[in-house]
Amino acid sequence: MAGGLNGRRIAILAADGVERVELEQPRSALDAEGAETVLLSIEGGEIAARNNDLEDAGTFSVDRRVADVTPDDFDALVLPGGTVNPDKLRMDSTAVAFVRDFVDSGKPVAAICHGPWTLVEADRVRGRRLTSYPSLRTDLRNAGAEVVDESVVTDGSLTTSRSPEDLEDFCERIAAEFAQQPQLR
Amino acid sequence: MAGGLNGRRIAILAADGVERVELEQPRSALDAEGAETVLLSIEGGEIAARNNDLEDAGTFSVDRRVADVTPDDFDALVLPGGTVNPDKLRMDSTAVAFVRDFVDSGKPVAAICHGPWTLVEADRVRGRRLTSYPSLRTDLRNAGAEVVDESVVTDGSLTTSRSPEDLEDFCERIAAEFAQQPQLR
Repeated sequence: MAGGLNGRRIAILAADGVERVELEQPRSALDAEGAETVLLSIEGGEIAARNNDLEDAGTFSVDRRVADVTPDDFDALVLPGGTVNPDKLRMDSTAVAFVRDFVDSGKPVAAICHGPWTLVEADRVRGRRLTSYPSLRTDLRNAGAEVVDESVVTDGSLTTSRSPEDLEDFCERIAAEFAQQPQLR
Repeated sequence: MAGGLNGRRIAILAADGVERVELEQPRSALDAEGAETVLLSIEGGEIAARNNDLEDAGTFSVDRRVADVTPDDFDALVLPGGTVNPDKLRMDSTAVAFVRDFVDSGKPVAAICHGPWTLVEADRVRGRRLTSYPSLRTDLRNAGAEVVDESVVTDGSLTTSRSPEDLEDFCERIAAEFAQQPQLR
């Protein structure tokens, strides 16, 4: 179904410390379906990527500041992991409000590994069935989520995966979910 | 009051990603009062330190594996921060059980910055008044803590601080708290 995302604009929200493959592989998969992917961050310039949280893994160029966009500009949102990345996003009230408004818009949101921490900060995991990296599952349960241990989980508009090992399933699922969604813009 | 911790043995529990100054400065302050400080980790060998989470900052030599000790071996416990460090500790059931048993022993426990995440995993912040780095305060509240924004907070046996900027207050307070505690071993 190459081209299934033609005309869709998809936001990827990340900060310093993002796990490189968790940004790169979803972006490639969505681009391959014809989507326009836009990397949002707290500040412009570049963000520092990591492999396995602790190894330097180059940088990514930021396309837009999250303060300069709204959910209306996008058809879907992806939240990659990397431990330090959501730790920075969740301290930025603009980034958290963007994520909250995106979930409330009903448009698809996908998060992998440590990405769901920003959903916790936005108080948007309550009553949702989801998964994550094992380290933050207690935080997700305490925030009201039903946490399961599966490679990819879709509950309504929210799709989640556990770690880089799930990327194949995650990329396939989000391409399909994002394509099913009526194009809203 | 140099020598106020003579004869005390104090555990510092950390893993890869520990914020260098948050391990080094408390250890120096406690050593200066005559304490014997012991660095515990999940595995033996060395752990990788960081400055500001993302910059390499050398290593620390691990003294003992947490699996090889019990709270009975120590008079007090320090949990440094660094985002990735507690993210690793909280996935190790032995480390989490050690922290839980330490809190339950009533002996002093101190945590700074992201250190309290391991207390969340141990379910030992419920009803406690404490502080932390801003990013995890939602997780602490969701786990039942009363979170305040002060440089150093002591609630019973638990002392917490927010970040490296609080290290002077943190080190002074924990040296005093640990010295007041009757020597149990």
